[in-house]
Amino acid sequence: MSGNSFGVIFKVTTFGESHGAALGAVIDGVPAGLGVDRAFLAREMARRRPGQSQLATARRESDAVEILSGVRDDVTLGTPITLLIRNADQHSADYAALEEVFRPGHADYGYFCKYGVRDARGGGRASGRETCARVAAGAVAKMFLRTLGVNITAFAAEIGGVRAETVDVSEIERNPARSPDAEAAVKMAEVAAAAAAAGDSVGGVVECRISGVPAGWGEPVFDKLDARLAYAMLGLGAVKGIEFGDGFAAAGRRGSENNDPMSPGFTFASNHAGGILGGISTGNEIVFRLAVKPTPSVSLPQNTVDQAGNVRQIRVTGRHDPCVVPRIVPVVEAMAALTLADFALMQRCAKL
Amino acid sequence: MSGNSFGVIFKVTTFGESHGAALGAVIDGVPAGLGVDRAFLAREMARRRPGQSQLATARRESDAVEILSGVRDDVTLGTPITLLIRNADQHSADYAALEEVFRPGHADYGYFCKYGVRDARGGGRASGRETCARVAAGAVAKMFLRTLGVNITAFAAEIGGVRAETVDVSEIERNPARSPDAEAAVKMAEVAAAAAAAGDSVGGVVECRISGVPAGWGEPVFDKLDARLAYAMLGLGAVKGIEFGDGFAAAGRRGSENNDPMSPGFTFASNHAGGILGGISTGNEIVFRLAVKPTPSVSLPQNTVDQAGNVRQIRVTGRHDPCVVPRIVPVVEAMAALTLADFALMQRCAKL
Amino acid sequence: MSGNSFGVIFKVTTFGESHGAALGAVIDGVPAGLGVDRAFLAREMARRRPGQSQLATARRESDAVEILSGVRDDVTLGTPITLLIRNADQHSADYAALEEVFRPGHADYGYFCKYGVRDARGGGRASGRETCARVAAGAVAKMFLRTLGVNITAFAAEIGGVRAETVDVSEIERNPARSPDAEAAVKMAEVAAAAAAAGDSVGGVVECRISGVPAGWGEPVFDKLDARLAYAMLGLGAVKGIEFGDGFAAAGRRGSENNDPMSPGFTFASNHAGGILGGISTGNEIVFRLAVKPTPSVSLPQNTVDQAGNVRQIRVTGRHDPCVVPRIVPVVEAMAALTLADFALMQRCAKL
Amino acid sequence: MSGNSFGVIFKVTTFGESHGAALGAVIDGVPAGLGVDRAFLAREMARRRPGQSQLATARRESDAVEILSGVRDDVTLGTPITLLIRNADQHSADYAALEEVFRPGHADYGYFCKYGVRDARGGGRASGRETCARVAAGAVAKMFLRTLGVNITAFAAEIGGVRAETVDVSEIERNPARSPDAEAAVKMAEVAAAAAAAGDSVGGVVECRISGVPAGWGEPVFDKLDARLAYAMLGLGAVKGIEFGDGFAAAGRRGSENNDPMSPGFTFASNHAGGILGGISTGNEIVFRLAVKPTPSVSLPQNTVDQAGNVRQIRVTGRHDPCVVPRIVPVVEAMAALTLADFALMQRCAKL
Repeated sequence: MSGNSFGVIFKVTTFGESHGAALGAVIDGVPAGLGVDRAFLAREMARRRPGQSQLATARRESDAVEILSGVRDDVTLGTPITLLIRNADQHSADYAALEEVFRPGHADYGYFCKYGVRDARGGGRASGRETCARVAAGAVAKMFLRTLGVNITAFAAEIGGVRAETVDVSEIERNPARSPDAEAAVKMAEVAAAAAAAGDSVGGVVECRISGVPAGWGEPVFDKLDARLAYAMLGLGAVKGIEFGDGFAAAGRRGSENNDPMSPGFTFASNHAGGILGGISTGNEIVFRLAVKPTPSVSLPQNTVDQAGNVRQIRVTGRHDPCVVPRIVPVVEAMAALTLADFALMQRCAKL
Repeated sequence: MSGNSFGVIFKVTTFGESHGAALGAVIDGVPAGLGVDRAFLAREMARRRPGQSQLATARRESDAVEILSGVRDDVTLGTPITLLIRNADQHSADYAALEEVFRPGHADYGYFCKYGVRDARGGGRASGRETCARVAAGAVAKMFLRTLGVNITAFAAEIGGVRAETVDVSEIERNPARSPDAEAAVKMAEVAAAAAAAGDSVGGVVECRISGVPAGWGEPVFDKLDARLAYAMLGLGAVKGIEFGDGFAAAGRRGSENNDPMSPGFTFASNHAGGILGGISTGNEIVFRLAVKPTPSVSLPQNTVDQAGNVRQIRVTGRHDPCVVPRIVPVVEAMAALTLADFALMQRCAKL
Repeated sequence: MSGNSFGVIFKVTTFGESHGAALGAVIDGVPAGLGVDRAFLAREMARRRPGQSQLATARRESDAVEILSGVRDDVTLGTPITLLIRNADQHSADYAALEEVFRPGHADYGYFCKYGVRDARGGGRASGRETCARVAAGAVAKMFLRTLGVNITAFAAEIGGVRAETVDVSEIERNPARSPDAEAAVKMAEVAAAAAAAGDSVGGVVECRISGVPAGWGEPVFDKLDARLAYAMLGLGAVKGIEFGDGFAAAGRRGSENNDPMSPGFTFASNHAGGILGGISTGNEIVFRLAVKPTPSVSLPQNTVDQAGNVRQIRVTGRHDPCVVPRIVPVVEAMAALTLADFALMQRCAKL
Repeated sequence: MSGNSFGVIFKVTTFGESHGAALGAVIDGVPAGLGVDRAFLAREMARRRPGQSQLATARRESDAVEILSGVRDDVTLGTPITLLIRNADQHSADYAALEEVFRPGHADYGYFCKYGVRDARGGGRASGRETCARVAAGAVAKMFLRTLGVNITAFAAEIGGVRAETVDVSEIERNPARSPDAEAAVKMAEVAAAAAAAGDSVGGVVECRISGVPAGWGEPVFDKLDARLAYAMLGLGAVKGIEFGDGFAAAGRRGSENNDPMSPGFTFASNHAGGILGGISTGNEIVFRLAVKPTPSVSLPQNTVDQAGNVRQIRVTGRHDPCVVPRIVPVVEAMAALTLADFALMQRCAKL
């Protein structure tokens, strides 16, 4: 669970730079005997793939996943599963002008201070492209969770100030905003397009709902289920906040209002807690929401400095998403799946 | 970084139940040669100690910390530092009635499902009392960070809907609310008292500001600095959300507004990002805010069920904080200190 | 599994210096619902305790273990179990003369170079006394393994050149050498006594046999069962070598001789491999042997240097075992138990 | 440090089956700014490659390493370095007959019991071919250690009962046995050839010597330097034992003989300890020896059982090394390099 690895038992390590040869993931700890659904893996990759709509970058990547190890005859062997995605459509020339400049809102300066060297092309390791390896690994985690009845659904709850007022899960994949509200989806696309036309970008909110998790998953005291989900989600560069259940709204409530009373059958009359109490799942639906910042790469002119500290004005002219929300939705699901797969296995060790 | 341990190099393991013999922490990875300031340790413990005001539980604990290992003549040896806090004022009888009942808003049901057994007295391991071990360990982390010029300050930004409108850091420890706004502090105490009088409780928001962190701390891709801080903070049972910098407000902004332009001297004209970009510190002040839920233990009657699934009505009559915000402030600082101490050491390994 | 922690799921962290306030262990990951046998714990501690015979140091320690957390009504809660052993009989004055001198055969110089500071009293953290925490933790691991039918027996196979020619397990605890051969035990005691009389010490070989481990425990590729056992055993300062099954003798054999043929019932006609192949248990008895060096603390005069690099002659006059083999036997069992308990839990996650 | 990952800071994860698409390694934690010497990497791979002499299998593999990430313009970026080696010369048909049979001396039965499924072709993940990923990763570790002046040399100390009587390091790579004694090398090749002609195999002893490690590397108490080296070496399927310095011979010595006296300049008059005391390096040369078992794959007929438990007689007719010692030499060096690189970085965190 450090650096480029995630998880304790179901453990994924990702690698790759945006404009390097390839990206990928090694997943250690996948139980043996799990069926591998290659069509599902391809569908998950397609959901994250760029170039699908006006909300997303025009970079064209096939994002085909080659399974290098750990699987034979579409069944997992218990050994590490390696997923490889070759980079294809690299317009590194777009970034030549940026080699010496720190882009506002990006990790450029931090990486430079950290390592002394950096791969500025496309953001290198800090690029959103890195998340394709997470989606691939997350697809395997979903295959495992499916055997346990766990289902994860994320969607755009808000884009550019436009909120989804209703939640129709079947609607999500039908519109480019990944909004569960078809009407809101149209407006979301409009505000994103308007921002793009102005050389700018918009942010939004992603909501994630997870059903089928039994009561009892999560570890005291540091590895609380919500702590690990927060760790997973803030591990996405565009995410600036997370709240579970009523979240920040709960800060203004009284205890008697905020508690979720239990009923016979060990069910709950409400779900202010978002399905987690004291870091342990309650059996209620797990619900969290993420603040997604507007894409920092905008073509409007911005002031910054270069490595020598000189003032520079730049326009970031590569291919970028005017709003990252729709494409981050499958990544959020993937990270949730990786987290839950780990806890599902840890729970096997909780009792005598 | 799993279960009851936190950190990769500067690594703390905590132990103890609310009504067991003792609580404590073992810290592995503290550099040798660090001076141990016992007076400071005692002051930090005092900040978290219950029974100090009407906002806090009346449980009386001296919370004296015995250092069992790793220190000789007030200098660290490089070996594990063990900090022991004996439990004294246990009113376990208060909990006898709760042994078979699941308190609303608590981890009781989750623990029962997880382990099949539980120590219901005072919440057992899920009690807020567990955090005294974190504060003790955090004090050591602060001693280390002090040598690096890192300073951490948390405070009550909001209690029961009352917000601090100004931030005067020198004010924080002068009022029982730990508000940086003396006027707001008075109102915060009033709303908390009113809730307590009604057998109820209130929530709030804690803000934390960290200065002195140089650019370059944080690890790609999963161990982002904000990801690990989020993991640290959501590891507190009362915390239901976190946001960095503008957080959820950034979701409604455009990229050109949200980016923080860099100026000569590698400074920033604004700090919408909260001092972290792409998971790496920028050298700007680190700022985050936490949603703290109202204390679930309220003396108003609540509906729930017992272990057999029968409907029960309970009043939680133990000694509880009407608002946990003031006492969680030093805990938030402690967790931030533990996180940053770990990253400070990891950064020693980043470059050739 | 780094520094002062051992294990992945069943994870123990030990702490304490020889002449500090206390030593102890925190065990995280013990399954909930395990019965805690306090009498057994006390017996295990007694087996390692000094002052029991002429082969062992005269230091008198009660080595009473206080259970601080994780257990209620003698049943494990699933939370960390903390075991505390106070130091009592500290003759720190014995070590005053050694504060500035590096004892031959000890870790003194290495610790000084590593940390720049050290606690020279009794070897500090490098003292064999540290192992009492391991025995306490190992006793809990044994309680868990007992529920799985796993049994661990170590004994003195050789002391001061005297070998046990027969293995009668019931004999081991009946003689101070912990030899499984009563006749050899007498001679072992004699050679140790003779060395002690000469101000010297002797080494030996410990053998460990483990029954009841089913086929399939161990993890490819780095966490092989034998790799982790070797890691556990070489983690004892006095151990300079380990061999599994025929070990170094196998180096001189041909493949056709060294292979253990399988028979119906998945049994083996021989056990040259010592019960582990490719790092995975075969179901056969696990057998390994350890080279234990002679105690480096001898009262004969020895040449060395002090911290300033000046030549010094010393006689180590503290209380020391003339042969560490008998007292290391329960420590070896404890480390084997901690290792196997971890693999037993990991195996729960191997298959769908 | 669990399963398929090795190391705490300098951390390598390997993947791949013998007859799968590829093998490889991801190395996380390599300091940024390290020059990557591709010619050296190729040479190291060539040392392990099969088909080089009569002592080795005839399997033909180019073992070309593709660097997929973490390096730009031959300088490390601080991000994970991925090394990919495609499998080429798979004679899976050789193994068709073995799919249902457990080969004596192999991990087949253990894997089957562990996972319920297995890839029997070439041993799958348990194949010695897996070590090519370790050699690739180890080459990077060596590049790092070179900057610190650490040098690692392993060689065949014994093959088929023939011992190297002299150690001329310059001789090692000049003979197919990797013997440091040219005369012994001839005899070693003869005994291996004789065994091969008889459809059999021989074992041997590998010795490893490491110079340039300063005093102070290693971590108390579980992560002793020798403990981690033992863990690294026993993680090789063919290794059945390890001893440091005088090892098992020390068991027969007295303390006064076995201690290494220190002299001015903090040097040692002898090196019975093999350069490590109490788990910490002393500055003396690190020396250890490994028991390598004879290759279990022999073409002589052997009795065994199949998955159904039926008696079977098999001849293992794939391409196998009559003696694995020469080819394991570079693997031993690689594992030593990975271990030491990790400790070199950990030592950066030891002092204030």
